[in-house]
Parts: sequence; C-alpha cells; structure tokens
Amino acid sequence: MHSAGTAEVSICEVGPRDGLQNEPEVVPTAAKRELIQRLAAAGLRQIEVTSFVSPQWIPQLADAEELVRELPRLVDVRYSALVPNERGYERFRKAALAANRHDLSVHPDEKGVLDIAALFVSASETHNKKNVNCSIAESLARFRPVIERARVDGVSLRAYVSTACGCPYEGEVSVRNVVKLVQQLAELGVAVISLGDTIGVGHPRQVCELVAAVAGEVSLDRIALHLHDTYGRALANVQAGFEAGVRTFDAALGGLGGCPYAPGASGNVATEDVADLFESAGVATGIALEALVDTTNWLARDVLKRALPGRVYRARLGARKQNEAKAT
Amino acid sequence: MHSAGTAEVSICEVGPRDGLQNEPEVVPTAAKRELIQRLAAAGLRQIEVTSFVSPQWIPQLADAEELVRELPRLVDVRYSALVPNERGYERFRKAALAANRHDLSVHPDEKGVLDIAALFVSASETHNKKNVNCSIAESLARFRPVIERARVDGVSLRAYVSTACGCPYEGEVSVRNVVKLVQQLAELGVAVISLGDTIGVGHPRQVCELVAAVAGEVSLDRIALHLHDTYGRALANVQAGFEAGVRTFDAALGGLGGCPYAPGASGNVATEDVADLFESAGVATGIALEALVDTTNWLARDVLKRALPGRVYRARLGARKQNEAKAT
Repeated sequence: MHSAGTAEVSICEVGPRDGLQNEPEVVPTAAKRELIQRLAAAGLRQIEVTSFVSPQWIPQLADAEELVRELPRLVDVRYSALVPNERGYERFRKAALAANRHDLSVHPDEKGVLDIAALFVSASETHNKKNVNCSIAESLARFRPVIERARVDGVSLRAYVSTACGCPYEGEVSVRNVVKLVQQLAELGVAVISLGDTIGVGHPRQVCELVAAVAGEVSLDRIALHLHDTYGRALANVQAGFEAGVRTFDAALGGLGGCPYAPGASGNVATEDVADLFESAGVATGIALEALVDTTNWLARDVLKRALPGRVYRARLGARKQNEAKAT
Repeated sequence: MHSAGTAEVSICEVGPRDGLQNEPEVVPTAAKRELIQRLAAAGLRQIEVTSFVSPQWIPQLADAEELVRELPRLVDVRYSALVPNERGYERFRKAALAANRHDLSVHPDEKGVLDIAALFVSASETHNKKNVNCSIAESLARFRPVIERARVDGVSLRAYVSTACGCPYEGEVSVRNVVKLVQQLAELGVAVISLGDTIGVGHPRQVCELVAAVAGEVSLDRIALHLHDTYGRALANVQAGFEAGVRTFDAALGGLGGCPYAPGASGNVATEDVADLFESAGVATGIALEALVDTTNWLARDVLKRALPGRVYRARLGARKQNEAKAT
C-alpha cells in the first residue's frame, strides 16, 4: 500500500465509470471490483465507481447495485457514482446503505459506502437536449430534489458540466454560459463542479481563460477539469488548468473512455500521464506510479485484451522489458 | 496547393528523416518522394528529407543520393538533410548539385537542391560518446570544416542538440551545459539550433526555464524545439515553448519516429497535432490540415500499413466517416 504524503493535486479516477461505460464488452463485476481495489492501492483517493442511469442506456454498468454491494471500505478513499435524477438517486442511496450489510464483520452505518453523488448537465442547450431530452433549466430543476435528499443524507455532490470547451452540435460554447451554470450549481449546493471538454476541442489558452472567468465567481477548490484527448491536447490543457489554479483533475487509467472501434476514439486523459506530468515537475499527486502502471497493464492485457492509448504505461512497460533483457 | 498567408509559427517536418529512419521496413524511394511532395503541397515549408550518415548505420536512408537526385524543386520549400561529418557533407553537397542535372528542363545552379545541412551533437557527454564515439568538444571540432565549406557553398546550417531535457545514461542534463553548447554552435555560425528532448522526459516548466536560459544568450528566432512524445507531454511542451517565445517546432507526420515493435515507442510529436494545437488557438501555421491528414492517412494505410500514434489524423478520419455515414 502506498504512503501518500500530502498531495498537491488530486486526481479523480473516472475509469470504472466514464471508461468502462464505453467498452463494447461488459466487464465482469469481479474484475470491476478488483480494478477499484487496485486503483485505491495505487493511491487514488477519489474513484467514480459506476452510474445509476438506466441499464437500458448503459448496459455496461447495469451491475451498479451488485458492484456497490461489495465495494471495499477503505480509509481515505471516497467513492462517487453518477446519478441522472431522483429515481437514480434512490437507487444510489439504497445501494450505498445495502453495501456490506451481508458482511457481519462490517458495522452498517447511516453514511453508506458511496460518498458522492455526481450529477451531469451540458453547457450547450442542444447537447443537453440530445443527451437528457430537456433544457438546461429543466435539468437544474430536476437536480433540486436530489440535492435536498443528498443534504439530508450527508452525501456530497459533484456536477459535471459537459461541452464546456465546445459542443458537437453548436460549435463554440460561450464562457459566460459556463460561468452562469457553475454559479447556479454552486448556489444549489454542489460541492465540486467538474468542467468537461467532452469532445476534446479545448486548447490551453481557452482553458486558462475559462478557469479565470470561473474563478471570478467560485473558489477554484470547488472546480475540477475533466479533459478528453481527442486531439492530443488533454495534457497541455491539464497544464494550463494547473497554471490557472485548478488542483483537481479527472482522469481514467490508460486513457479509457473512447470507443475502441471508432478511428477517432476520444478517451479521457490517462491517469498515469497526468500523474507523471505532475510528478516529473515535482508536484505531488499521492499516486504510486508503478502500481498504477501494473493496474493499467493488467486491465489492458487480462481484462479488455487490447492496448490502451495512454503513453506513460506503455513507455514504462517498454523500459521494464529493456531492463529485464539487460539483466538476463 | 495551399495558399499559406503569413505563418506565425513554423513547423519543420522531420518525418522523412527522423521518422522513416526508425521504420523496420525500408520505404521505397518513390514513396519517399511522393511523401515529400505531398508534405510540400500541404503547406510544409521546411522538410528534412534524408540523412548522409553511413548506410551501414541507417539502411532505411541508404537511398539518400537517389532520393535527392529527383527532389521536386518548389518555390518557398527548403530541404534539409542530416550530415554527421565532413565526409557526409561531401555526399550531401554532391547529391545537392547532381539533383535534376539529368532533367534538361531544369537549369542546374550552384546552390543545389538541399538548402540546409543539419548537424547533431548531444548535450550529455555519455550520450554523445555512445552515439558518435567522441566527446562533445570533439564533435564541435569536427563541425568546423563542415561549417566552413557550407559557408562557402551558401548552404545554411541547423544543429540538433539532443538530450536537452534529460539523458538515458546520465539522467538530468544541466541547463548550463545546454546553454553553453547553444552559444558555441551559434558562434560557429549555425543558423538554427534545435533543442531535442530525445527521450521525452521534459515537462512544461522545464522547457520554459530552458528556453528562458537560452534566450539570455541567443535570439529565439534561432531556436527550434524538437520534442518526442514518450510520456504524452510533447504537445504540452510545445505550448510551453511557444509561451516562452519559440516560434519553430520540429514534428513528424502521424507522430512517426518511434519503434513500432517497442511497447514504449517514442515518436516525434505529430505534425497534425502541433498544427491543430496552434490553429485552434488562432495561431497561423500555413498548413492545410485536411491535406496533411490525407497524407498521413496515405502513409499509414498504403505505405507503412499500420496506424500511427498521432491523434488529430485519427480524429479527423473518424469524423469524416461519421459524416459520410450520415450523408448516405
């Protein structure tokens, strides 16, 4: 187990949810549980484990209840799960409280095993309409009862603002719209708002300007960046966000999250690549990189049976093979 | 043909040399020539076409004379070729003057078809020793007669300083050593010095500090950055270099330049990715991105018969396929 020390940046691991929901094959629940355990052992302190959207939409995560039921309870690790609406929150809460009840060695508590409910809304009206079939205002209205119940239950809230750097339907998304949405979410009581470059079109100056505009309204310790690597700029945008003052970054091990069959596969920025970017510059992440590389290699080779787009895990594996060849 | 306008940054295309020299299969000379023609048509204005190192070292580029003999003469396109020593320069010069002599429609001139001779030296003594079996001082001494002959011949000089961000043998490379070497090369009469992160270990703050230190001694219009993407940071480092004032970046189409068999393949930063990074931010590169994407796709699919690591060409191809599917 990794001794973390004080991390200067936090990486929120979204692979088990935002990654595996895009895989063509459904990953077995036991493998998902092992993945989460390994991620925690590698030093990840916040892990998005699954989603309570309808299994009809995302069959890959239809085992949400079963997965949550046996999540390992670990000191210092916080679990989040996606919640689309009040009905999803009911499933979230029931699953969180049911977890480990069957295990007599664990004392059931009122908190439940899921710490954070994650909401999602788009900064672009067209994208929100296509994604959840309602306006942004209607999305916010649907959040209210969820937020109220979460407050009573002591569950923290995270919200994803997607298309924050551009929309596949509308093109440019105005910074003013994003800032307004962030303000509204913050006022509603959402603890952390994650700005998502869903289609990877953002560039460093844009990220810098967006963060500066948001910082004028909301403290940056409530802001995360959720960057996709469609055009190879995710890491440049992480760097820009860091320089602008953001200290929380979403990432998925191996760069999971693209469709492996699409030539323009657009995954999340890879957790190892983000960790190595910061660690190489002397910025502590709390992550044990070799353990994370092992985990990504295990997931790619033994579970998904394909190479993942992340650069650092491949480079590290290549270096290990060279060293082994030298040693023998 | 692309109408360039005024480019605010210059991309030096090194794919035909630094890319193809790492390919396991030798690419036919005709395909290399077509590649260079296509790159020029896509707006690349400086192309490193081959190397005059010994064919025993790099059999992939053993056709240097044959290739140069029929290079298309294009207005505004400058060709460079790698030259290891005086003997290499003799081959370079002979090939440059012989080019197109067989074609009676082209008037032979004294300038020759190759505009730039590219020298190389490492910022780390151990790396230089392993690479060319002499000290850095000895390398510089060997450059002198080449530089003198190039001056007489009206050939411009470029020098690569490899391991500028770190050495595979020595680890850290001091900024002071790099700055000293840059100064020496500039004083010798080298027009442009390209700082190479040979093993991709550089990070944005480091690049920024390196450029700032170099700028104290040499005007930045004489400095290029040559970044490899081993750990996914090449584009973040391009951005850092740009912000620090560099305006010339080396790149290879598709991210060529890694060994396709090594799991930790470490290619050059992809030309399309660099162009798109800048163009998305409104910084003109003079490159017609769609034509370049076509070229990379052609090279990957028809010539090398494998996917290349570049992100933008794959994303663009994916988007095209989606649009075609919609249209039918």
